[in-house]
Amino acid sequence: MGTPPGYRPSAWVHLLHQLPRADFQLRPVPSDFAPREQSYQQALLLVASLAGLGLGLSLIFIAVYLIRFCCCRTPEPPGAKSPPPGGGCATWSCIAALLVGCAGIGIGFYGNSEASDGVSQLSAALLHANHTLSDIDHLVLGLVERLGEAVRTELTSLEEVLTQHTDLVAAARGARRQVEAVVQQLPGLAFWRGVPLSLLQVAEDVSFVEEYRWLAYVLLLLLELLVSLFTLLGLARQSKWLVVLMTTMILLVLVLSWGSMGLEAATAVGLSDFCSSPDTYLLNVTQEETGLSSDILSYYFLCSEAVSNPFQQRLTVSQRALAGAHSNLQGLEREAVPQFPAAQEPLLSLEETLNATEGDFHQLVALLHCRSLHKDYGAALRGLCEDALEGLLFLLLFSLLSASALAAALCSLPRAWALFPPRNPSVSCSGSHLSEPLLRARLEPAPALPSWA
Amino acid sequence: MGTPPGYRPSAWVHLLHQLPRADFQLRPVPSDFAPREQSYQQALLLVASLAGLGLGLSLIFIAVYLIRFCCCRTPEPPGAKSPPPGGGCATWSCIAALLVGCAGIGIGFYGNSEASDGVSQLSAALLHANHTLSDIDHLVLGLVERLGEAVRTELTSLEEVLTQHTDLVAAARGARRQVEAVVQQLPGLAFWRGVPLSLLQVAEDVSFVEEYRWLAYVLLLLLELLVSLFTLLGLARQSKWLVVLMTTMILLVLVLSWGSMGLEAATAVGLSDFCSSPDTYLLNVTQEETGLSSDILSYYFLCSEAVSNPFQQRLTVSQRALAGAHSNLQGLEREAVPQFPAAQEPLLSLEETLNATEGDFHQLVALLHCRSLHKDYGAALRGLCEDALEGLLFLLLFSLLSASALAAALCSLPRAWALFPPRNPSVSCSGSHLSEPLLRARLEPAPALPSWA
Repeated sequence: MGTPPGYRPSAWVHLLHQLPRADFQLRPVPSDFAPREQSYQQALLLVASLAGLGLGLSLIFIAVYLIRFCCCRTPEPPGAKSPPPGGGCATWSCIAALLVGCAGIGIGFYGNSEASDGVSQLSAALLHANHTLSDIDHLVLGLVERLGEAVRTELTSLEEVLTQHTDLVAAARGARRQVEAVVQQLPGLAFWRGVPLSLLQVAEDVSFVEEYRWLAYVLLLLLELLVSLFTLLGLARQSKWLVVLMTTMILLVLVLSWGSMGLEAATAVGLSDFCSSPDTYLLNVTQEETGLSSDILSYYFLCSEAVSNPFQQRLTVSQRALAGAHSNLQGLEREAVPQFPAAQEPLLSLEETLNATEGDFHQLVALLHCRSLHKDYGAALRGLCEDALEGLLFLLLFSLLSASALAAALCSLPRAWALFPPRNPSVSCSGSHLSEPLLRARLEPAPALPSWA
Repeated sequence: MGTPPGYRPSAWVHLLHQLPRADFQLRPVPSDFAPREQSYQQALLLVASLAGLGLGLSLIFIAVYLIRFCCCRTPEPPGAKSPPPGGGCATWSCIAALLVGCAGIGIGFYGNSEASDGVSQLSAALLHANHTLSDIDHLVLGLVERLGEAVRTELTSLEEVLTQHTDLVAAARGARRQVEAVVQQLPGLAFWRGVPLSLLQVAEDVSFVEEYRWLAYVLLLLLELLVSLFTLLGLARQSKWLVVLMTTMILLVLVLSWGSMGLEAATAVGLSDFCSSPDTYLLNVTQEETGLSSDILSYYFLCSEAVSNPFQQRLTVSQRALAGAHSNLQGLEREAVPQFPAAQEPLLSLEETLNATEGDFHQLVALLHCRSLHKDYGAALRGLCEDALEGLLFLLLFSLLSASALAAALCSLPRAWALFPPRNPSVSCSGSHLSEPLLRARLEPAPALPSWA
């Protein structure tokens, strides 16, 4: 009842989690997230190396295709009228491939921004949780100080005033015992004090890595965009040197695309394993890192009615002691003030302190309740396992699209290049060197084609 | 201290909020969000109508340009060798314009998804707040029932057992009074009971409207993408009927783009006014809709240390009464059980009830604290005023880019069309009708151009 709808693994997580994994000896590896086990690391490396295989295959295919194109042409008489069979649409198919690549770039920008959103959601949730935990610390510290001060000054001066009347002194001592009991209970509530794990540091590390990952992808996307546009420009201007330069660049970007695809695939598979059941793994890791008891961690990680509040006992005892101290002081106010008017000032001051303490106590109860921290946990998981994973899958789609488009462009560019006319500086288009493909067809007599075009 | 970093208006909100607004008589209108005031509505309508003005101007420009192109050509002798000045790059400039339009479409998809993310964040925050409010209701109801039951059965049977001993009966009556005091205080904590505003309904309405908005934009973006691709195809195949059809479609999409731009601009301006200081407006509206007191609403909307918890008094009184009842029962257990063993069962049962009640009370304190609801409020505002506004601005950029690109394409399409050769079914490219722009320039003798090309 008290827990809001939390994190549920998405269909993508289930799908990726069910893919078989194998180590380097191709023995099956269970798909539980275990980043420290060697066989699991090998399984992820194997997924990444599939992309290397893809790169090798596509390079072999391109090489075979181009060798066949260069060497196995049927010789044609110069000035032949019909276009060589299969060689007619090279420019348009290159343009189409580059357009598909550009669509992939759009998808890549979207995926990169989705992944970045997810990670910043994770980092914001970590920061919020850190805020809550340090608030608990400060609140407990403030309460202990305030109550200790009240015991040292006001309760002592009250006892001094009432020293002649043993019954009243006994009541004051009772209030002192109860306040001291509260002061004794409180430090046990600041459970995060002295824990060696800093959520702030984790959030900063995550943001730092994510910043560079985001930048690297933006640079890769811009590089691919520039290469596509300059290739189109090279085709439009029929500039051989530009097309040759861009062919080299496309080869480079092809390698980068396959490389990023390998990284993305391995990360997506690892992330799906983590996201399919994060609670157990995180409970163990956090327990190792923080040394906190498992009932505190289960309370915050699960936050269900089955797990009782581990601070319930301390909170109830403290609150009863506070209420007892309050009723003791009220009794004193009724009985002592008429006899000892000097007791009024410390009594009023003490009641004010108790009232303020009860207000802060309510805030402490709210902060310690699992609701807030569990909501941060859910938000962090949703950021990582929904948005970031979705972004990663879009990036994977981008890498796939761009690898196919670039391979197609690499196949068709040399064919388009072979159709370029010999350099003729007088051909210009409105003062520029842009070719007007459809216009010159009508305006110029056909020069002799190279025999292999 | 207790409040997490909340919502801050972004730079875009400040920028848009500072733009001057005017009503239909061009009198300045203050830029405070007041959707029910006529002058403010007129100011937003005026912003939207600016897009209509833009559409009119661009249509006039296109018409003038095309009329000038058709009528003011200098007649040329048939078979002229040089391309007509300024008419050379029509196809490439049309391709470039359509590519810019496609980039705009990519930006539009991104903006649409960003806006949708923002609105679903708003709707999730509303649902979570609704969850918290109904949890408070259920918890209070459960506590009242449980305590009422304890008073009716166990306390009554305890009093019956102890009836011979007036001191003990007095202690039992004291416990009864205190439990009854708690039962009396509790209903005042369920502040959302009977409020005529359903956050669930609001969240569902928001999601419903957003779903259709999202779908409409996806359809518009797909329409523009298809029109761009088919225009490119028409240029590649040199198909006159396809180009003419696409020119009409481009005109339609141009009108739709300017229309959506008007809607986006007005919404962005209105949203910036709302987002620059949402607290005051929402406080007033919520107070009107719910009839809740302003100190409760300020507590949740502001959640600062300056606003005290309006339930503090009730919570403290209830908790002291519970602690008092508990100490009464403990006294009875010490004194009554040795004399009346029959009292043990109801006493133990009562203490169990009180312990469980205190556990639930801690949960109630956590739910009632402003932290959780204020965090939802902050998340809703960030969703609406950061993500959704950002998405809206990207959509505005898309509309602007696509309106310019489509206008440029409309100007250059007829010029490219004029350069198409007369229909010649024998010209084919690898079995298709795709033109090979760079190839046929070398292969075919130039046919006579129409005199106006």
